[in-house]
Amino acid sequence: MLILGIDPGYARAGWGVVSQIKNKLAPIAFGCLETKSQMPHAERLQKLQTELKKIIIKYQPDALAIEELFFFKNLKTALQVAESRGVILAAAFDCHLPIYEFTPLQVKQAITSYGRADKNQIQQMVKLILGMKNIIQPDDAADAVAIAITCAHSLGKKY
Amino acid sequence: MLILGIDPGYARAGWGVVSQIKNKLAPIAFGCLETKSQMPHAERLQKLQTELKKIIIKYQPDALAIEELFFFKNLKTALQVAESRGVILAAAFDCHLPIYEFTPLQVKQAITSYGRADKNQIQQMVKLILGMKNIIQPDDAADAVAIAITCAHSLGKKY
Repeated sequence: MLILGIDPGYARAGWGVVSQIKNKLAPIAFGCLETKSQMPHAERLQKLQTELKKIIIKYQPDALAIEELFFFKNLKTALQVAESRGVILAAAFDCHLPIYEFTPLQVKQAITSYGRADKNQIQQMVKLILGMKNIIQPDDAADAVAIAITCAHSLGKKY
Repeated sequence: MLILGIDPGYARAGWGVVSQIKNKLAPIAFGCLETKSQMPHAERLQKLQTELKKIIIKYQPDALAIEELFFFKNLKTALQVAESRGVILAAAFDCHLPIYEFTPLQVKQAITSYGRADKNQIQQMVKLILGMKNIIQPDDAADAVAIAITCAHSLGKKY
């Protein structure tokens, strides 16, 4: 199965498609959707939704995994990320994708077996798990792939 | 011009279309978009977006006015309202509508000339301003119409 992981964000939203065949995980594609700060607020949200739909149509994932908004430092940023999550979730439902949500702690535990991994450790572990030569960049894309891996592990446990 | 006001919400989002011809405001239509709590989270957001687009297509407003998320008691609710705002803003941009945002205080000041109006006072003032026989119900629809009136006043000042 193909899992599309999303690290939701307003200015930058990471995405990553991971294939799972039995217990073997492999990277298919990843990247980061960016919107320019000069664009009107609503246009940035609409663009994020449109671009995400293009990715879904291109890669035809079987499920979408997204990070829950769990804790944050800045309330304004949190509300903007929530607005982004709104358009992402609506787009996923529109494309008939089952949606799985994970907290940042669940992702860190799934990837590194402990809950205190930093960005670099996540990138290193994602590289190891997927047998890649290089770390995934930028951070947002690596985080999105980590979320897809977390989903794969979680679904694997259910079967 | 026709202004579509939105009181954003997750379970219930009020909407109201007000026409402005010179200084004369009149109610055109109003209501409340509701999603059932049994529906999956993403489906509720997608339904809200789809239903809003139907309203935009039906009434062909010239602008959309929406309440900013400014203060709140419950963080979980605030994040859900922000997710709703995300899909509403993206839908409005998708339909090429100019978007105007107002704080709850701006709306109360525009409607009642002071910032401490309760729901009932808003409903009574909306009724008076629009020369209606009865108050608009439910609250969410009245709030949405109040936001549309605020936008009309605000645009009026600019001309």
